[in-house]
Amino acid sequence: MAKIPVGILGATGMVGQQYLALLANHPWFKACFLAASPRSAGKPYGEAVAGRWNATAGAPAPDVWDIVVEDANDLSRAEAARRKGGLAFVFSALEMGKDETRALEEAYAARGIPVVSNASAHRWTADVPMLIAEVNPHHTDIIPAQRERRGWQNGFIAVKPNCSIQSYMTPLWALLQAGYEVKRVIVSTMQAVSGAGYPGAASLDIIDNVVPYIGGEEEKSEEEPLKILGKVAGGKIEPYSGLAISAHCNRVPVVDGHTACVSLEFGAKKPGIDEVKRIWRDFRALPQELDLPLAPREPIVVRAEPDRPQPRKDRGADKAMAVSVGRVRPCKVFDIRFTGLSHNTVRGAAGGGILNAELLKAQGFFG
Amino acid sequence: MAKIPVGILGATGMVGQQYLALLANHPWFKACFLAASPRSAGKPYGEAVAGRWNATAGAPAPDVWDIVVEDANDLSRAEAARRKGGLAFVFSALEMGKDETRALEEAYAARGIPVVSNASAHRWTADVPMLIAEVNPHHTDIIPAQRERRGWQNGFIAVKPNCSIQSYMTPLWALLQAGYEVKRVIVSTMQAVSGAGYPGAASLDIIDNVVPYIGGEEEKSEEEPLKILGKVAGGKIEPYSGLAISAHCNRVPVVDGHTACVSLEFGAKKPGIDEVKRIWRDFRALPQELDLPLAPREPIVVRAEPDRPQPRKDRGADKAMAVSVGRVRPCKVFDIRFTGLSHNTVRGAAGGGILNAELLKAQGFFG
Amino acid sequence: MAKIPVGILGATGMVGQQYLALLANHPWFKACFLAASPRSAGKPYGEAVAGRWNATAGAPAPDVWDIVVEDANDLSRAEAARRKGGLAFVFSALEMGKDETRALEEAYAARGIPVVSNASAHRWTADVPMLIAEVNPHHTDIIPAQRERRGWQNGFIAVKPNCSIQSYMTPLWALLQAGYEVKRVIVSTMQAVSGAGYPGAASLDIIDNVVPYIGGEEEKSEEEPLKILGKVAGGKIEPYSGLAISAHCNRVPVVDGHTACVSLEFGAKKPGIDEVKRIWRDFRALPQELDLPLAPREPIVVRAEPDRPQPRKDRGADKAMAVSVGRVRPCKVFDIRFTGLSHNTVRGAAGGGILNAELLKAQGFFG
Amino acid sequence: MAKIPVGILGATGMVGQQYLALLANHPWFKACFLAASPRSAGKPYGEAVAGRWNATAGAPAPDVWDIVVEDANDLSRAEAARRKGGLAFVFSALEMGKDETRALEEAYAARGIPVVSNASAHRWTADVPMLIAEVNPHHTDIIPAQRERRGWQNGFIAVKPNCSIQSYMTPLWALLQAGYEVKRVIVSTMQAVSGAGYPGAASLDIIDNVVPYIGGEEEKSEEEPLKILGKVAGGKIEPYSGLAISAHCNRVPVVDGHTACVSLEFGAKKPGIDEVKRIWRDFRALPQELDLPLAPREPIVVRAEPDRPQPRKDRGADKAMAVSVGRVRPCKVFDIRFTGLSHNTVRGAAGGGILNAELLKAQGFFG
Repeated sequence: MAKIPVGILGATGMVGQQYLALLANHPWFKACFLAASPRSAGKPYGEAVAGRWNATAGAPAPDVWDIVVEDANDLSRAEAARRKGGLAFVFSALEMGKDETRALEEAYAARGIPVVSNASAHRWTADVPMLIAEVNPHHTDIIPAQRERRGWQNGFIAVKPNCSIQSYMTPLWALLQAGYEVKRVIVSTMQAVSGAGYPGAASLDIIDNVVPYIGGEEEKSEEEPLKILGKVAGGKIEPYSGLAISAHCNRVPVVDGHTACVSLEFGAKKPGIDEVKRIWRDFRALPQELDLPLAPREPIVVRAEPDRPQPRKDRGADKAMAVSVGRVRPCKVFDIRFTGLSHNTVRGAAGGGILNAELLKAQGFFG
Repeated sequence: MAKIPVGILGATGMVGQQYLALLANHPWFKACFLAASPRSAGKPYGEAVAGRWNATAGAPAPDVWDIVVEDANDLSRAEAARRKGGLAFVFSALEMGKDETRALEEAYAARGIPVVSNASAHRWTADVPMLIAEVNPHHTDIIPAQRERRGWQNGFIAVKPNCSIQSYMTPLWALLQAGYEVKRVIVSTMQAVSGAGYPGAASLDIIDNVVPYIGGEEEKSEEEPLKILGKVAGGKIEPYSGLAISAHCNRVPVVDGHTACVSLEFGAKKPGIDEVKRIWRDFRALPQELDLPLAPREPIVVRAEPDRPQPRKDRGADKAMAVSVGRVRPCKVFDIRFTGLSHNTVRGAAGGGILNAELLKAQGFFG
Repeated sequence: MAKIPVGILGATGMVGQQYLALLANHPWFKACFLAASPRSAGKPYGEAVAGRWNATAGAPAPDVWDIVVEDANDLSRAEAARRKGGLAFVFSALEMGKDETRALEEAYAARGIPVVSNASAHRWTADVPMLIAEVNPHHTDIIPAQRERRGWQNGFIAVKPNCSIQSYMTPLWALLQAGYEVKRVIVSTMQAVSGAGYPGAASLDIIDNVVPYIGGEEEKSEEEPLKILGKVAGGKIEPYSGLAISAHCNRVPVVDGHTACVSLEFGAKKPGIDEVKRIWRDFRALPQELDLPLAPREPIVVRAEPDRPQPRKDRGADKAMAVSVGRVRPCKVFDIRFTGLSHNTVRGAAGGGILNAELLKAQGFFG
Repeated sequence: MAKIPVGILGATGMVGQQYLALLANHPWFKACFLAASPRSAGKPYGEAVAGRWNATAGAPAPDVWDIVVEDANDLSRAEAARRKGGLAFVFSALEMGKDETRALEEAYAARGIPVVSNASAHRWTADVPMLIAEVNPHHTDIIPAQRERRGWQNGFIAVKPNCSIQSYMTPLWALLQAGYEVKRVIVSTMQAVSGAGYPGAASLDIIDNVVPYIGGEEEKSEEEPLKILGKVAGGKIEPYSGLAISAHCNRVPVVDGHTACVSLEFGAKKPGIDEVKRIWRDFRALPQELDLPLAPREPIVVRAEPDRPQPRKDRGADKAMAVSVGRVRPCKVFDIRFTGLSHNTVRGAAGGGILNAELLKAQGFFG
């Protein structure tokens, strides 16, 4: 089977690089179209990123170095590629302002090019699904309404949430789905420096140090889960209202891998610790049923050791796509507590985006 | 005024070294008697710690290098020193098993030598005060009963709590004292490697990593505050029962300084954020009134910056004896949340012990 | 083709673990026999290493967890395995004293079990080859003489050198082989903490720090190259005498990957910088000709960027088996200088050992 | 005695901040005049550096926060201050381009305001002394010629060299002065991230990593020593020609403190190891004789331990102004080798600048 030609908007940035690294050997998708700022446009990709290739996931496919980078603002080239069958959809890793990103992603969709986005611009657009493939794959049901309202034929926009919530969102969902209402969550994260892009945190701020603040991160961590758990109704996604989250977000001297310490309170029906572990171990979702290429076999890996998960040792679990949890134990204040971990630049960024695209492909959204 | 001659049990270990560094220029106390394991006994101190002096607080007084180390198990030497007026009390930084420590500290007290201890052995002995000088200085009221029950003339034992709670215990107390009951606390710590002693954590476990577990630390963090907030009655200290704490304790790649992310819930009467900050800024306690040498002028430093306190930048606040707090803001689940920080090997260990001794001296307990 | 059954002495230690990780999918060898200290003997491997599996190269083959560990000192079990065709040779990753290691490795060889060793015990035994597969593969010519002198039928011992020299030894050899005599080398290394085993360096000694000393490392770095470049003659290996090396060895806060800054002086015939780069780029040796499974395709990767190689970014080059060099430039004092890098626990330890075994297999030494 | 009023050009940058921290309690100098870029001009200093005060040496004098920052390009304010006796000289910590810095420093000098500079712009101006106070204090002899040639009355410019050479330059000088010619030096440095200013190195480039390149640093390290060792003759400084240096400069994950591994070759007369240590221990120079406030009592601290100096443990030696050396031993290729260490943002930057100003004051250059 010929591979599906895909594009990357923001291809020279850190998330764009990570996309290319993860697509290097992808069985379905092939990076064919690279777009970035006017500064990079016209240069072979290898030249455009010379001296600033930082993807920790490895190297891109060899032919990528020679692809001439397009100006992301010039849609004519993308449209021409699409017409010739050379571009099925784009991953958006744009690093512009929110308004510009929103407008540009819409422009691609309007020209018939679906946008699978990592950017935060459209996360709160009511008819745009914010997907974690194992949690709310059915939110893609909104896409027909999105197209209709906007008059788009083939284009659409789907986004993914912030990397900070990925280490506990799937575990929460698994409990909810098993019939245990989760009412309140207090979470404290220890987040890797790669989450800040490049150059990100200054080394003077992070060696022998912790920075107890990441701009905007706590708000995202508290609100995005509610949309992800929301209901598709009347052409929009109604956020879930049954859950309150309080997040403390910290930056720590770790390269990759966000760790979260989570205390949670159930509703009236409360599972025991063993039941929680069983639910997590047994959890499988649509990506696993569909056997999507980047889907982890076990979405939630439950570690038995007293001192795991740890970012350096566990971030790579199952292609760096699994969430690792451990230290599942009773909470002295709420019901249970645990430590969760996920790889922020793979599962929490480019890898999560690719898995979303695999899901959309399997659901027939790329026509 | 001649300085008071003091001893250190466990003088060669990491906490013992930190005691010596902090006593180097102390206006009241002078380290005169050093005791350690039989392995070190008989050697000049400088030789006993050759190649393993690790105190981050600096160097000891120059004459300390030549003091011949005694065997801590041989009480006759300490007693002789006491009789000759060469030993007023000892700091215990013993690193033995719990039972042996308990017995040895009692033996010193029985010989008339007060013990101001860092060890955890006697923290839960009902008639032994566990002191944070700004929080429960009145717990020293138990000492006469302790002496009487045990038939000790001049000796007694006073201990300090674990380092992990020092970054939020004084703030909690300040709120309680201002009339705001605190009912529930969920706290997540990011603790420095120096808290594990030497050699402590392997570098292979901590570079580019977080270890979400410290043996016994969460239990101490949850229970010790209750004794500290307890009531002296009937010759013992009754733990406080009005507060529930849940602690997640993590080790991070930081040399010194424990950071804590705290969410707390008040009783019926709830202060606003500005009121909380005001209470903390204005908080002064007995050590400040008595102007004790190691007492921080402001026990709680409230930082206004959005991204402070940070361990490397704030651990040294006010001789490394102040608690720094910041990010005081409403909690989405409880009432307020904040980040606290204290220097674990100064305020949380040797410095806290010395401040306790200063308090006991000012209260007349060294006769 | 059935895989060759191999054993690991010291299987529970850090190098032993790394062997098992690297053998997990090896096309020729299969780990069947695991031996360690009496403390581990009798336990399934998974139990023996519970809580201390630290191999950064990944997990072992799944069936390894259930192999019952033997006592390495009890040779009867190894011999029985060998007789039944269940053990062709052993990798030695013993972490005992030098004399015991030497004796035990000889005992295995005497029982007909070849020993491919990582230990330093036999590095200076005159009839034992110290192999870097690309540099001195012909030193295996000594093996018949080794067997004869000692009366061994099938057994023999071959060792590998210290990890500290691997980042510049192959580059030096490539220049020598191209006809450029290297007379003097001054090298300064920045070595990863994994080189010290587990627990190795205390985190308190390495966070925000450099330790400018590694016991015994400089001597090994200065002397081992001479044996490797030596001549097989009269049943022993005569060290090379034409080269003087001075090494400064430092420990830095890096997990894996030893970096070396090298200045070198040629004899009368001196290559230009471009010629040096060409020689390194074009260098291929016996492992490449034989297409051995773990042989890097390009043994020396020459980086063009001004700021490479870097340990975190380059240690994984070509299965972590290639040496990366960069910054090749004239030296203001000697002739040229450069920075070299190799992965110390793969190329410099278990990976190098496996490549040696592949070479020995291809040369017919496993019968 | 009233303190001498001094100014700081580039007061808001990282070196400027470090100047203010080190001047906080200076017995002779008082920071009265702060100048920076137009962006900061007109703001109280506290506001101008809000959120980016990073000096590791502590806080400035309390009144500094309220000083209104001037535009460094507007010399009228500085001149007015000078006339009113409110500005005796300025420290230059300008972070502009080389040509602009050179011109601006000259403009201050032309207006009668001496400039003691950290910037590199004038390091190679033939009539500008590049001072290490213990090595070439007599180079200030050039100042009268500098003034005369340029027609300056009271102003002049004096600079300090790069931070990378400070850990071995004083030791080299001590040997030269003792009559031992040093002919060749090969040095490899491990430099702290604070040397790159703020934000400097990205944390993604330095955690678990080493960067074997610092732009321009090797050239400075090889050439600046020659001017420092040069001779004042005919109104200029003739660089020394008897020494060849080759430098490898690396960035490592250390906050403060540059470490250097040095191999050196003497001329015909060669001291033994003990003689070298004795020379270094006994070395005293003009700053010590004059008992200058920031002068270390022992300029060169010789450590006896096998594994020192280390940056975190030794950078603070003697107000962070002493050079620490250790591992003095024979070199297998040259004559001797050792490890040197100095604090790059104190001794190697602001502290070195202040010591130079103290020297100039004692020599009567501030009129």
